[in-house]
Amino acid sequence: MPEAESAAATLPDLDAIRSAQARIAPYVHRTPVFSCRSLDAEVGARLFFKAENLQRTGAFKARGATSAVFSLSEAEARRGVVTHSSGNHGAALAYAAQRRGIPAYVVMPENAAKVKQDNVRRRGASIRFCAPTVAARDATCADVQRETGATLVHPFDDVRVIAGQGTAALELIEELPELDIVIAPVGGGGLLSGTAIAVKSLDHAAKVFGAEPANADDAARSFRSGRIEPLPAATTIADGLRTTLSPRTLGAIRAGVDAIGTASEEAIMRAMRMTWERMKIVIEPSAAVPLACLLERSLDVQDAAVGIILSGGNVDLERLPWQV
Amino acid sequence: MPEAESAAATLPDLDAIRSAQARIAPYVHRTPVFSCRSLDAEVGARLFFKAENLQRTGAFKARGATSAVFSLSEAEARRGVVTHSSGNHGAALAYAAQRRGIPAYVVMPENAAKVKQDNVRRRGASIRFCAPTVAARDATCADVQRETGATLVHPFDDVRVIAGQGTAALELIEELPELDIVIAPVGGGGLLSGTAIAVKSLDHAAKVFGAEPANADDAARSFRSGRIEPLPAATTIADGLRTTLSPRTLGAIRAGVDAIGTASEEAIMRAMRMTWERMKIVIEPSAAVPLACLLERSLDVQDAAVGIILSGGNVDLERLPWQV
Repeated sequence: MPEAESAAATLPDLDAIRSAQARIAPYVHRTPVFSCRSLDAEVGARLFFKAENLQRTGAFKARGATSAVFSLSEAEARRGVVTHSSGNHGAALAYAAQRRGIPAYVVMPENAAKVKQDNVRRRGASIRFCAPTVAARDATCADVQRETGATLVHPFDDVRVIAGQGTAALELIEELPELDIVIAPVGGGGLLSGTAIAVKSLDHAAKVFGAEPANADDAARSFRSGRIEPLPAATTIADGLRTTLSPRTLGAIRAGVDAIGTASEEAIMRAMRMTWERMKIVIEPSAAVPLACLLERSLDVQDAAVGIILSGGNVDLERLPWQV
Repeated sequence: MPEAESAAATLPDLDAIRSAQARIAPYVHRTPVFSCRSLDAEVGARLFFKAENLQRTGAFKARGATSAVFSLSEAEARRGVVTHSSGNHGAALAYAAQRRGIPAYVVMPENAAKVKQDNVRRRGASIRFCAPTVAARDATCADVQRETGATLVHPFDDVRVIAGQGTAALELIEELPELDIVIAPVGGGGLLSGTAIAVKSLDHAAKVFGAEPANADDAARSFRSGRIEPLPAATTIADGLRTTLSPRTLGAIRAGVDAIGTASEEAIMRAMRMTWERMKIVIEPSAAVPLACLLERSLDVQDAAVGIILSGGNVDLERLPWQV
């Protein structure tokens, strides 16, 4: 599988993550880190939550998108950027393009949550709807590229995007060098790849864990088998994590991640609700998966100092999971 | 009305607020201040939100309660403290008593929200339920005092409590001396009194505004008439603000507040929801009332730098106002 190996080889190093950090600094927040005694007691560890739900566009995706958009040459940038996304990366790319003053085209399934559509439109991007299948999505993306000459910015399979996502863990370790473990949710693996590269390249003793819904445990299985495993048929409320890895992210994760835990739908819902009730912050289901793994003990963090990346806070307030 | 006049005279000064700040510092958070460009654009001003929803116990009430509890003599403290409260002050008093290691008794109406009951019980206080009338509440409080010798810590009509509540505005002005206006919601008036005393005593040019539901506009009417006006018959989702002023808080508010705005129930709901969606933080309806006044333009803040005290974040996640 030579293509896969060559793609997997193209990963950012710590210098690339530091360059991304400098490049994106004017456009993203250095997000705060929160702690909560009652959650610490619940889990039996000291938890430090990096609040990427308070990031611009409501998710860490603003980091990767601005990293990519501000890496483009003037000639490339002028023709715009295009992506497919269930929403958070789309909104982030729209935001990044708006800040650079270039067009953005976002291909989205017709059934995407309204709050995610609004997040894209509010930033002046054009939405192109497609049927909710991978084939329709890719075809529509290719159409846009052909029509406009826009550069595809993939949600995770992109070295500039991964470098941007790695800046969240970089900030977290800079602020809390005493961390024993850093946990990030894993869907396509951009955030987890960037996190693993940042933490492990810092010559830091901290472990890196991934966290995934049991109903979308393809990354956990791929991590064990070394091959891209398919998504299970079951669905998950953590809609941002319904994605398989790419050879590139699988390579980074196999190299730098120590374990991937899984969580039930019930635990994800419970962790999400506990975070809202006790920390008073709005997080989306995907962001609750690391805490859910700790509640179900699928990852061992006993007595450790644990950094958790709260990946985002974009939810449809009309339809909360515990009310369905 | 000599009693009222004498009560009104007993208010904290800036020194008392600074003493409270030192006394409570080990037990409360210096809460962060957030801003949000899209809300600034909506309102036409620069807004700075003091996030007391992230305060211990989920509300600014922790400030006043710890101020009062840590003012008691050893002999007083040993017999405990008692209060009546729809919840936030009760939880705060339970927390303060727990930190001092003394008993707390909280008198609560039988229909108080479950999340507020849990917040009290989790902190080891005893709840005494009463019928949801002022007479039953006061009688039950008196019973507890007689039985135990506990000190009554009133939710707002207490000089030590008002001094504690004033520390939120003190922190806000210390951090942002450029503020033109500070806005706090007003129910019984403890927070607004402390805010007005802190801001105006700092020899600071900032104006102080109160914000109140139109359906509970007794403070706005009392502010104009100079007398304690009764609550309207209508109800409001801002349950923390269904209280009339006391002569003491009316005095402080008449002396130091520049205007009191009112907001419709629709605007309160909209402001609450906008805060959740755009700022990704959980606030309760009462905390949304200042922003609601700005959305409806019942307070004029055009182009100003405006500090807003987000008073709390304790909501029942089963029953959100926009879903009823």
